[in-house]
Amino acid sequence: MPDTSSGLTWSLVQEARERIAGKVDLTPVLTSSTLDAEAGAQLHFKCENFQKSGSFKARGATNAVFALSPEEARRGVATHSSGNHAAALARAARVRGVPAYIVMPDNSPQAKRAGVARYGGEITYCEATLAARESAARELVAATGATLIHPYDDLAVMAGQGTAAVELLAQVPELEAILCPVGGGGLLSGTAVAAKSLKPSVRVIGVEPAGADDAARSFRAGRILPIVKPDTIADGLRASLGERPFAVIRRLVDDITTVSDELIVRAMRRIWEVMKIVVEPSAAVPYAALLGERTELRGRRIGLILSGGNLDLERLPWTASG
Amino acid sequence: MPDTSSGLTWSLVQEARERIAGKVDLTPVLTSSTLDAEAGAQLHFKCENFQKSGSFKARGATNAVFALSPEEARRGVATHSSGNHAAALARAARVRGVPAYIVMPDNSPQAKRAGVARYGGEITYCEATLAARESAARELVAATGATLIHPYDDLAVMAGQGTAAVELLAQVPELEAILCPVGGGGLLSGTAVAAKSLKPSVRVIGVEPAGADDAARSFRAGRILPIVKPDTIADGLRASLGERPFAVIRRLVDDITTVSDELIVRAMRRIWEVMKIVVEPSAAVPYAALLGERTELRGRRIGLILSGGNLDLERLPWTASG
Repeated sequence: MPDTSSGLTWSLVQEARERIAGKVDLTPVLTSSTLDAEAGAQLHFKCENFQKSGSFKARGATNAVFALSPEEARRGVATHSSGNHAAALARAARVRGVPAYIVMPDNSPQAKRAGVARYGGEITYCEATLAARESAARELVAATGATLIHPYDDLAVMAGQGTAAVELLAQVPELEAILCPVGGGGLLSGTAVAAKSLKPSVRVIGVEPAGADDAARSFRAGRILPIVKPDTIADGLRASLGERPFAVIRRLVDDITTVSDELIVRAMRRIWEVMKIVVEPSAAVPYAALLGERTELRGRRIGLILSGGNLDLERLPWTASG
Repeated sequence: MPDTSSGLTWSLVQEARERIAGKVDLTPVLTSSTLDAEAGAQLHFKCENFQKSGSFKARGATNAVFALSPEEARRGVATHSSGNHAAALARAARVRGVPAYIVMPDNSPQAKRAGVARYGGEITYCEATLAARESAARELVAATGATLIHPYDDLAVMAGQGTAAVELLAQVPELEAILCPVGGGGLLSGTAVAAKSLKPSVRVIGVEPAGADDAARSFRAGRILPIVKPDTIADGLRASLGERPFAVIRRLVDDITTVSDELIVRAMRRIWEVMKIVVEPSAAVPYAALLGERTELRGRRIGLILSGGNLDLERLPWTASG
């Protein structure tokens, strides 16, 4: 087992990359001259919406599941998640051939429930509060002996998420900044360790919905200020910042900025219209930051992590029924 | 000027490829293990939804515009089109720096009107009948001296459309069949000439909406049986089969099959959900054929041309407001 006492390290990200190779996809990077013109910058979109299970969460979950000993793995894995981590964990467990027990809030989008079910995960529903989720997960673990794989406050998960930035910097070495959505902080912390290790000059900027801005407030305060009632369309970013991610973020991340839901929806729509790809609201958050102010990024070569593409196609934010 | 007396030839497709190189995109080919399992075949999706102007029509329009003499080009180009050819022609004209005059039926989707406007095309609206479109186009040509570039009944356009199959067979040489949507026949005729010239053993199959099945009926009858009132959600495939395309299709195409609008919508939705890409209804028509019977294609390596990705995102066929 790797030494994890010192928090997330570059070694853990490199080990994750070897461990998950061939089990998740190397996703493409897309560009758009139209969106470049709108943003006044050179944009490189890392398409984790095309990733296995439909989001970057496949990386961390796969790393965590395959890091378990055979004895641990045999008893299965468990988690509580708004959706993408749940589907990713169910898939990783299936790839390893072990059971996955999933606690989901009862307001999870139908597409995300279906994702878990598709991979054979056993779903237990609970109220949409962090306390209810954690309590239901504890009960499951006690009953089954499964290992709890937290969606983001877990070094193996954080290390796995960092592999997206490793790939991105290999695909576009000339990047000057990376914009990354932030919810619980798993992706942002992994991205920061990977990017700053590979290319210290790269600016790493977190982008967060204004209606779930605990990471931005915590970053400024220097201590975790939890979110109580998140209110944003970006369902993947409603979680509260985790302690292990925050320890990395406060040390390595250059800035965390927030965007309104109105900008998120506008950004999401432009990505669908112009790039002809399906991304979920959370994935549009980095591009939304470029539709706002961020004047210091004008003219720069920017990587944006399109974190996922799972959403209910009946309920789009720009339709009457949305 | 090439000799065009003998209809569409392989030489014309090769010339088109050279002429449009660097002016349109080489589009990627995507695969999906989930859709492979659903269809019981190995599917290779040629993503013309990612093409310049959002559809394969950029290929034919660019070839036609750049085949004009400087003197002809200076007076501009004109066309009537339900949308994708119009946007493609407006873009090609802008790339060459000449005017484009576009006649559009007044029921064209908003996204397709916007496509023409974006590239600076001058739009004239008319009734949604072939007669009204042709008459309005004739008037425009008489008034401006522009060259009429027919959306499909034109050898330069057909040759350009054939370049998608040239690329596809270079990207996936082991293909055994190509499924191609058919409306006016420009794409299918170009595809047939390219595919049968490069690899005679490849089966080329046209797929058409049941509510606009003139190509299927004409293919069986051996003569053109025009469509009077097309009724299908696939707005790009409502046109009547052209004479020049038909001359190729009856000689080289192996079969033309039809699919219901219900299957088209189901296919479109699966492509969005699973592949995370935006395709318009017409583009989903080939995959719809695989959701139906087509048992002779089970287990085969099949290329499918995803013809375009332009549609009104407010009006999706599976939403209440659609």
